[in-house]
Amino acid sequence: MELVDTGSAMQASDETFADAYEARQAIRAGRWRRHTSGLTPAYVQGNLAILPLALASDFMRFCQSNPKPCPLLAVGQPGNPQLPTLGREIDIRTDVPAYRVYREGVLEDEMPDLKLLWQGNLVTFVLGCSFSFEHGLIDAGIPLRHVAEGKNVAMYQTNIQTVPAGPFHGPMVVSMRPMKAADAIRAVQITARVPKVHGAPVHIGDPSLIGIADITRPDFGDAVRIAPDELPVFWACGVTPQAVVMAAKPALCITHSPGCMLITDMLNRDLPFA
Amino acid sequence: MELVDTGSAMQASDETFADAYEARQAIRAGRWRRHTSGLTPAYVQGNLAILPLALASDFMRFCQSNPKPCPLLAVGQPGNPQLPTLGREIDIRTDVPAYRVYREGVLEDEMPDLKLLWQGNLVTFVLGCSFSFEHGLIDAGIPLRHVAEGKNVAMYQTNIQTVPAGPFHGPMVVSMRPMKAADAIRAVQITARVPKVHGAPVHIGDPSLIGIADITRPDFGDAVRIAPDELPVFWACGVTPQAVVMAAKPALCITHSPGCMLITDMLNRDLPFA
Repeated sequence: MELVDTGSAMQASDETFADAYEARQAIRAGRWRRHTSGLTPAYVQGNLAILPLALASDFMRFCQSNPKPCPLLAVGQPGNPQLPTLGREIDIRTDVPAYRVYREGVLEDEMPDLKLLWQGNLVTFVLGCSFSFEHGLIDAGIPLRHVAEGKNVAMYQTNIQTVPAGPFHGPMVVSMRPMKAADAIRAVQITARVPKVHGAPVHIGDPSLIGIADITRPDFGDAVRIAPDELPVFWACGVTPQAVVMAAKPALCITHSPGCMLITDMLNRDLPFA
Repeated sequence: MELVDTGSAMQASDETFADAYEARQAIRAGRWRRHTSGLTPAYVQGNLAILPLALASDFMRFCQSNPKPCPLLAVGQPGNPQLPTLGREIDIRTDVPAYRVYREGVLEDEMPDLKLLWQGNLVTFVLGCSFSFEHGLIDAGIPLRHVAEGKNVAMYQTNIQTVPAGPFHGPMVVSMRPMKAADAIRAVQITARVPKVHGAPVHIGDPSLIGIADITRPDFGDAVRIAPDELPVFWACGVTPQAVVMAAKPALCITHSPGCMLITDMLNRDLPFA
């Protein structure tokens, strides 16, 4: 099983686009094949999971039951590659820079589009990602250690169980950001307003209380320094549904490649009201 | 200097009233001379401070600059004992069960009303108190240790400095409630919605970071147990303005007696929208 890594926001890009639509056109035309973090930063980006119809109902129920790790932004109609609620003319077969194809939970291929792979029984799921709330935290003047250190955010398996649905079950994966207490309090308030991108933290403080034995050794991403006057603050992470889906070994699952997200027409600033 | 203790909500009373107005009439008539915690629990109760006009402007500015410890619910017109924005026919000279009179910062007297003491140069300040947000926490199913243990909440001097205004300056006093992390996260969200009653916490975790040397020895109130899986959560406390006012040694200052609050016509449930 290989985990898709949601990456972390705020990396600079050397190209800019006027809006999400224009960025998607560049991606569709093959002019942008890299990660999307920092690209059109005003817009909400989403994690992608595409599953066969036979599993779609259970996965939708799994997301509905576990909204913090699996905040659903949109679900496509079976076989329909459009996502009109997320953006103008989105075609999920072409509008993500790179895709990964898993069969029975094993990574089989990486490809620039799904034109040949698309079938009438595929259902698209787009889930909120932490790029959006990291923008909110940075806008509020809360420093993010992994951004300052140029690293990927630290992620951990926990002993927090998700609510199972059909073949989908497993522990929650969390991301951790060390903060001073005053910033942690503000971060709770800021992220609580955006449940579509993981919402409020799931834990603050002692990592062992959620089954993390060694905070210096994340399961995914990079370790970051925690200062003596800081608390580790843990958010539900979009790696959770990816791990859960892979563990269920679906006949076919297609995701975005790490960091290569779907850029939607939703504005981050509108998320508190979404 | 003697500190008025704001006490803690949720104590049972053996008498009930239909609403705040009726409770105030009983208090005014001398039929209720005790603390008001648990009395007409749907209604917001307020801390009282009455100061001479010469100090009123500085104190109002102090409250405005320090809204977390000093959330102003209302300021009376000089010499006017009514507070029409807080409740029908309130007369601050008679509608609090017991008053304390301080001169030059020293407790001089305790009295059942201010009929003889009232002067044309007195200005009334009513400040929000933690009774209201404790109701909100309990309504949300968050257990409060001091309530369970039948104690007063634990309060501590800190090294957090208030913003000074005229003669008013000094460190913030905080109240502490131990909570599991998940409850602490929810408590931040719940109390952030009610800035008129202290709002979100000012600190979570390591007490030494805000100058508290020994968490087992509160400066006011009672020590409570902190379980190994709990975080201490600290809120700005209404004892702060009381300590600051007493330290300024005003010629005259009148407060409510500990726990004997002004019951307003405001509903706790309306506080998030106030």
